[in-house]
Amino acid sequence: MKKIKVGVVGATGYTGEELLRILVRHPHIEVTYVSGKEDRAEKIQDVFPYLQGKLDLECNAFSVDEVIKKTDLVFLSLPHTISMDVVPQLLKAGKKVIDVSADYRLQDEKAYEKFYKVSHKDLQNLKHAVYGIPELNRAKIKSAKLIANPGCYPTGSILGLVPGLKAGVFAVDTIQIDAKSGVTGAGRKADKGLQFSEVNESVKAYKLFEHQHVPEIDQALTSVAGKEVSVVFVPHLVPINRGILSTIYVKLTPTGASGLKKKLDTEGLLAIYKKFYTNEPFVKVYDAGRLPEVKYVTNTNLCHIGLKVNEEKGLAVIVTAIDNLGKGAAGQAVQNMNILCGFDETEGL
Amino acid sequence: MKKIKVGVVGATGYTGEELLRILVRHPHIEVTYVSGKEDRAEKIQDVFPYLQGKLDLECNAFSVDEVIKKTDLVFLSLPHTISMDVVPQLLKAGKKVIDVSADYRLQDEKAYEKFYKVSHKDLQNLKHAVYGIPELNRAKIKSAKLIANPGCYPTGSILGLVPGLKAGVFAVDTIQIDAKSGVTGAGRKADKGLQFSEVNESVKAYKLFEHQHVPEIDQALTSVAGKEVSVVFVPHLVPINRGILSTIYVKLTPTGASGLKKKLDTEGLLAIYKKFYTNEPFVKVYDAGRLPEVKYVTNTNLCHIGLKVNEEKGLAVIVTAIDNLGKGAAGQAVQNMNILCGFDETEGL
Amino acid sequence: MKKIKVGVVGATGYTGEELLRILVRHPHIEVTYVSGKEDRAEKIQDVFPYLQGKLDLECNAFSVDEVIKKTDLVFLSLPHTISMDVVPQLLKAGKKVIDVSADYRLQDEKAYEKFYKVSHKDLQNLKHAVYGIPELNRAKIKSAKLIANPGCYPTGSILGLVPGLKAGVFAVDTIQIDAKSGVTGAGRKADKGLQFSEVNESVKAYKLFEHQHVPEIDQALTSVAGKEVSVVFVPHLVPINRGILSTIYVKLTPTGASGLKKKLDTEGLLAIYKKFYTNEPFVKVYDAGRLPEVKYVTNTNLCHIGLKVNEEKGLAVIVTAIDNLGKGAAGQAVQNMNILCGFDETEGL
Amino acid sequence: MKKIKVGVVGATGYTGEELLRILVRHPHIEVTYVSGKEDRAEKIQDVFPYLQGKLDLECNAFSVDEVIKKTDLVFLSLPHTISMDVVPQLLKAGKKVIDVSADYRLQDEKAYEKFYKVSHKDLQNLKHAVYGIPELNRAKIKSAKLIANPGCYPTGSILGLVPGLKAGVFAVDTIQIDAKSGVTGAGRKADKGLQFSEVNESVKAYKLFEHQHVPEIDQALTSVAGKEVSVVFVPHLVPINRGILSTIYVKLTPTGASGLKKKLDTEGLLAIYKKFYTNEPFVKVYDAGRLPEVKYVTNTNLCHIGLKVNEEKGLAVIVTAIDNLGKGAAGQAVQNMNILCGFDETEGL
Repeated sequence: MKKIKVGVVGATGYTGEELLRILVRHPHIEVTYVSGKEDRAEKIQDVFPYLQGKLDLECNAFSVDEVIKKTDLVFLSLPHTISMDVVPQLLKAGKKVIDVSADYRLQDEKAYEKFYKVSHKDLQNLKHAVYGIPELNRAKIKSAKLIANPGCYPTGSILGLVPGLKAGVFAVDTIQIDAKSGVTGAGRKADKGLQFSEVNESVKAYKLFEHQHVPEIDQALTSVAGKEVSVVFVPHLVPINRGILSTIYVKLTPTGASGLKKKLDTEGLLAIYKKFYTNEPFVKVYDAGRLPEVKYVTNTNLCHIGLKVNEEKGLAVIVTAIDNLGKGAAGQAVQNMNILCGFDETEGL
Repeated sequence: MKKIKVGVVGATGYTGEELLRILVRHPHIEVTYVSGKEDRAEKIQDVFPYLQGKLDLECNAFSVDEVIKKTDLVFLSLPHTISMDVVPQLLKAGKKVIDVSADYRLQDEKAYEKFYKVSHKDLQNLKHAVYGIPELNRAKIKSAKLIANPGCYPTGSILGLVPGLKAGVFAVDTIQIDAKSGVTGAGRKADKGLQFSEVNESVKAYKLFEHQHVPEIDQALTSVAGKEVSVVFVPHLVPINRGILSTIYVKLTPTGASGLKKKLDTEGLLAIYKKFYTNEPFVKVYDAGRLPEVKYVTNTNLCHIGLKVNEEKGLAVIVTAIDNLGKGAAGQAVQNMNILCGFDETEGL
Repeated sequence: MKKIKVGVVGATGYTGEELLRILVRHPHIEVTYVSGKEDRAEKIQDVFPYLQGKLDLECNAFSVDEVIKKTDLVFLSLPHTISMDVVPQLLKAGKKVIDVSADYRLQDEKAYEKFYKVSHKDLQNLKHAVYGIPELNRAKIKSAKLIANPGCYPTGSILGLVPGLKAGVFAVDTIQIDAKSGVTGAGRKADKGLQFSEVNESVKAYKLFEHQHVPEIDQALTSVAGKEVSVVFVPHLVPINRGILSTIYVKLTPTGASGLKKKLDTEGLLAIYKKFYTNEPFVKVYDAGRLPEVKYVTNTNLCHIGLKVNEEKGLAVIVTAIDNLGKGAAGQAVQNMNILCGFDETEGL
Repeated sequence: MKKIKVGVVGATGYTGEELLRILVRHPHIEVTYVSGKEDRAEKIQDVFPYLQGKLDLECNAFSVDEVIKKTDLVFLSLPHTISMDVVPQLLKAGKKVIDVSADYRLQDEKAYEKFYKVSHKDLQNLKHAVYGIPELNRAKIKSAKLIANPGCYPTGSILGLVPGLKAGVFAVDTIQIDAKSGVTGAGRKADKGLQFSEVNESVKAYKLFEHQHVPEIDQALTSVAGKEVSVVFVPHLVPINRGILSTIYVKLTPTGASGLKKKLDTEGLLAIYKKFYTNEPFVKVYDAGRLPEVKYVTNTNLCHIGLKVNEEKGLAVIVTAIDNLGKGAAGQAVQNMNILCGFDETEGL
């Protein structure tokens, strides 16, 4: 099989780095282009010295012409609002694009404008972008030209809620998501608030109700539930490098409303989840009595899910764990590439 | 003023250590007795070498007779279910006791039995024990003989809920507390699951709905609300030494029910909190737009509180931060001692 | 190619876990046996839930008969002093053995007895054991039946010193190694001193001059230098999960003694190192001006080396970084297996 | 006693913050002035919310006129090379100055220029500055007008070497210091390399032989030894907030040279150290068999010292632990203030 030529734009950020880490192990592709933020050229194997012997490429400032010339498929790991300047040219040149920024995730341009403080400039392609959660949209991903790779928080939240919402057993109006994220989620950057000694030995909540991932979660859940879902989402920063633990609080619908004959207990809800994810290679639902821990998904493309029903109070708590750079970004992007290119979906992961 | 002679039973645990750290700075007391778990004697300043020059005491296995002989007031930092063997003797000998274990916190002996798996053996003294949250029970603490020092999780949860519950603006049936605790909360012990490389770079939830601090929270909140409160409590372990961040989700009561004339917004709820805590030296309510972070309360007896109302959804999120060994244990115990002994409440803290 | 059947004895420790993590990705082997410390059986994919879908094996207490029946090659990750009970039987049954314990590393049985407090029981096989550092002993490894996989500290120290010692440019009597190790180096165990809150936010030195890895380092360096080497070795514990940074201080031999025509500078010493490691897939020597960092070797089988000569003082400082579970244990064990079995040396790594 | 009015210039950095933390507990002084880097004014108790109720001051950009008007004594926690612009004016106005920058530490202006890349502008006052290590210079500190507060690395190194150098038992030409520092040592700043996820789970050496603290160490040791000392100094960054562990390697002088009658062993060297520090309130020398750990000095002004002699090799390893913000900066600055002002030397510490 001829190898597909792949470019990573924004290769020096955390997601870009993780993409390279995965892609150099992938048997069916060749990384033929990388670009970073810096003006001066540098060998990518000098930026990330563990890549030596696995990749030998110059990393320059981004050039659309270059990436078009050198690749078949492009991972865009650019800052939000910049991807949409580039995507039209790439698509026009016949490239497949997996955009890990937020630019093509929200079908509602108004929501985009509200949360990203800028008007969308590429409504044309936005319409055809496929939201890249394979567990929901595998068929569409297969034939997509432009994949909007989901955000890290949305991935952990959506995967934790979809089976119950599809089954109609969750009240849609009281979903509360308490998410704890590692620091790579904030990107690689000089920021006083992200300095080691500011983050270490502390925990904080931030952007209450206002995080830009909220509309993304709502959009996906609304589509699944068939009625409007609007979650309460509270992200937290915890002193770990990688990983998100999402603790999700949902009210259960009354037995009648959910079409169930008897009250849902932990085993009952787990059965719904296990059935939904039965063939998914990257989602594991824990048996009753055990809950996910971030360490078991670090450096993987896995999403682990555990849950418990409180029958007395008529609610459930669902806990999901992902690696924000794995299933929450680069891992899922490669999974999407595998589907798009007809490779084994787990190749390289 | 003659110094009060104080004993710390269980001085080699995290809470005992923190008690010593605070007490050696306290001008009105003298630590005259310490005991630990080990059989062999050891100088306490060898166990904690930073105490050298501040304390010179032999640390032996606990002896009731010794502590009675040598002290006026005793901090009991013994494992749960063991305190109640000792308290009767201490009280009989006329000692004041501040018990940092859970043995005298739950007035309902059935709840105690359910969560601590053993029958209560000292119902007599249990009746007279005062639950030591000064912000709620200052008057009773002043004249107490036995203080049940609150648990760490309960302290952060209760302080975050009391003003709203007292004001009648929170629905009592849907309170959800998502708490993130540092590892000293688990005590100093050999436990594979607490090894550095098991906890570091991970986050997990545990004891869903079942944590032994739940009845303690419910008891305090029920008493404040005047009707039964039963919270949903989900504790998490995060890789920090000290500190608890509690993120509390509450439904607001309808305007009529709460007796308010207009819908409660963030400023309105903050006003209730600020008023309630206006004279409290150790509770700080943040202005709108800012939330507590664990690092600002580490090594202090402070409880920091921030909150935000989501008017559209009719709910509030309240975030509290404490040091689990400070306001969550040793700090609060010393605050209680200060009140009990008629010292300035902030002395040594 | 028919897959080789591999057993991992001691699979639930950190090295055993890392072996599994690597081996399930390896195309030419099949893991057919795992054992742990616990008496009760457990699925290994329940112990390490990220293995689900990659391995489906019951993990029982170790049985020699079972491992002989089910495997061709055995990784022994048993505690020191226990391996030598088992190795004779495995070799007799015709199994290849890669022992990651210390039992077959020291050719001098007296040194073994001194540092491990027990007499060696298998001098017969000890004689034929090959010390498994491929960069030194590749030819012998190829035909070995029993490989003594090096310790983590020795690997980082030896690789940092060999090129200079071979070239005769280092004084052998003043080598000082200041090593900083992550906590997995201590193994997975319940130990109060290894609890998160004891190790976190601290650094300490331990076992000054007395660490059991000292004779192993001396043995390897003496063999390379052709005269007795006895290093000063000071290990430190730092609060990271994985990785060892070794800072090595050496006096340079006078120009004449080393056979060099001119005084050695940084470039000159680097040239010696680069030449020595030129074909090594897992050793990278940095250019002047850059030094290794643990994070660039974490989760890899790499050893990164940087150095600087202080010409005025006639000494060099060499810094090496490895992952103690990678090149320092499981990674190197798999590298040894690859050589032993005739696979590509980098397969799976 | 009338309280002394104290200003903290550079109060928003780590050292400034630590100064405030200590000073608000100090009974004999009042903080009457604080300034920070930001242009806009902010309440210092909003910058550091745990100060609320303890300090109520506006924090503005620095103004020499203001600080002169409002204070008797000034702590200057300004970046290097900026202090010397300000000190002349403060001294002229009769203020006592404790400068925690490096500007007045090096008596040799050429060394200053070489390491700080700028000419010294205030040679006049430099001559009279007293290097503020109380254990060496207590008498001079008492009557000083300008104290150059030592650097963090120098404090840990110098205190670890002085007793042996004074006793003549260390060879002065082969001193090697391997220091491991927490991240606050780098100051509070936006710097990509200091981001949590860059520092966490890693260790690195930096500035080999070139750190700006080298001439400071050499100057102090040369003065103590009475002959030129030039150390090999290798600093490392470890993922902790606070603390420095210095591992110091020294050759022992031959028995004759040191004037000792018999070979020095661990007990003999410890006796020298214990005698030297016998009356020092902040230095603790451990008994044989125990070594310092960073955690026991965190948040203190202590320096803990342990050591071990390797008689066979004729060398000693000395390990010292300090808190870089305590004895390594703010703690020592307050200790100096106490001496200067005639307070009890341990007041507030």
